[in-house]
Amino acid sequence: MSTQEAYLAQVDHAISDAALDTIFRNARTMRHWQDKPVSPTLLMAIYDLMRWGPTETNITPARFHFVVSKEAKARLEPLLDESNRRQTMAAPATAIVGYDLDFASTLPKLAPRAAENLRAMLAKDPEKARYMAMRSTGLQGGYFMVAARALGLDCGPMSGFDPEGVDKEFFAGTQIKSYFLCNLGFGVPDSVRPRAARLGFDEACKIL
Amino acid sequence: MSTQEAYLAQVDHAISDAALDTIFRNARTMRHWQDKPVSPTLLMAIYDLMRWGPTETNITPARFHFVVSKEAKARLEPLLDESNRRQTMAAPATAIVGYDLDFASTLPKLAPRAAENLRAMLAKDPEKARYMAMRSTGLQGGYFMVAARALGLDCGPMSGFDPEGVDKEFFAGTQIKSYFLCNLGFGVPDSVRPRAARLGFDEACKIL
Repeated sequence: MSTQEAYLAQVDHAISDAALDTIFRNARTMRHWQDKPVSPTLLMAIYDLMRWGPTETNITPARFHFVVSKEAKARLEPLLDESNRRQTMAAPATAIVGYDLDFASTLPKLAPRAAENLRAMLAKDPEKARYMAMRSTGLQGGYFMVAARALGLDCGPMSGFDPEGVDKEFFAGTQIKSYFLCNLGFGVPDSVRPRAARLGFDEACKIL
Repeated sequence: MSTQEAYLAQVDHAISDAALDTIFRNARTMRHWQDKPVSPTLLMAIYDLMRWGPTETNITPARFHFVVSKEAKARLEPLLDESNRRQTMAAPATAIVGYDLDFASTLPKLAPRAAENLRAMLAKDPEKARYMAMRSTGLQGGYFMVAARALGLDCGPMSGFDPEGVDKEFFAGTQIKSYFLCNLGFGVPDSVRPRAARLGFDEACKIL
């Protein structure tokens, strides 16, 4: 442990400045990829980290289908907006991040004490189930990209695709619905666009 | 920089194992809080990190109202589910995380090249605007909790509250809608519940 790490751990378990750079300040959306594969072990490592992030009543509704093979990439290509095709075909892996409307079936494992009541409530109110699935999958999508970056990968998240087409092609026979896509790999460092602005604290926050 | 950090940085810019513990593996939802305040500087530091996380077309629709004062806490208390009242009143700060349906008004700053077309599209399709706002605020909610943990804070996210009541009490005169709440502070370490299960890789993921 470095002196800085030891100091931070003593004070309040905060992580190092270099790590904050990696997961937030220096991380950039990538659109150009090195010809360097991403191993299945690394994809599993992303999931193994991000799955610990909190969700409502621990429902963890996010599902991740990693499109890696040429065959699977060819199925995805026509479902992408034109502007996302080249970068996605060049990326070593593309995660289809979906939310499972049937998350209630996992509750006996994930939330045994709440399972029975929650399942009964969700069966009566599919709109509430959909809202819950989307909200927690959003959080898990955030954890997912942070975890990938924490492991040294670059991310290229995308919303420009045909969601109904992706659901039909990749999630047939399930109740999983596609939410966003995320290319994964090792980006070409000098290829990123100039960084877009963000809102200042006073524009996005208030202390009451 | 420690030997481990130097090795990781050389290989692929990954962050240290201790940092992964802090933001994912050892982080737990807290419901009991130490009597130790959270400074405004620390709240600003959370935002200053999490705002760099990616959102669709950089719309960054999440808004954070930090309920800290006794007066503001008293306004929030009756809007909470009974089971969330004690922990929230004891927490040094509670973030109301909302999504701004009027995010289009920030686009000239955030996405100048896309602003005009996107604003015209969103004005015609408020359901699409709502979907976009919720999806990206979910991601930003994930970044928010990781950033708080990375800075040494504990989080206690909650969905048990009256969203319409919170919107009326805290977001009147705006188009911000409450999405979830998150207590922030320094938790009582031995107070956490046994950790709930998570899905295995094969239950939540596929490699195609």
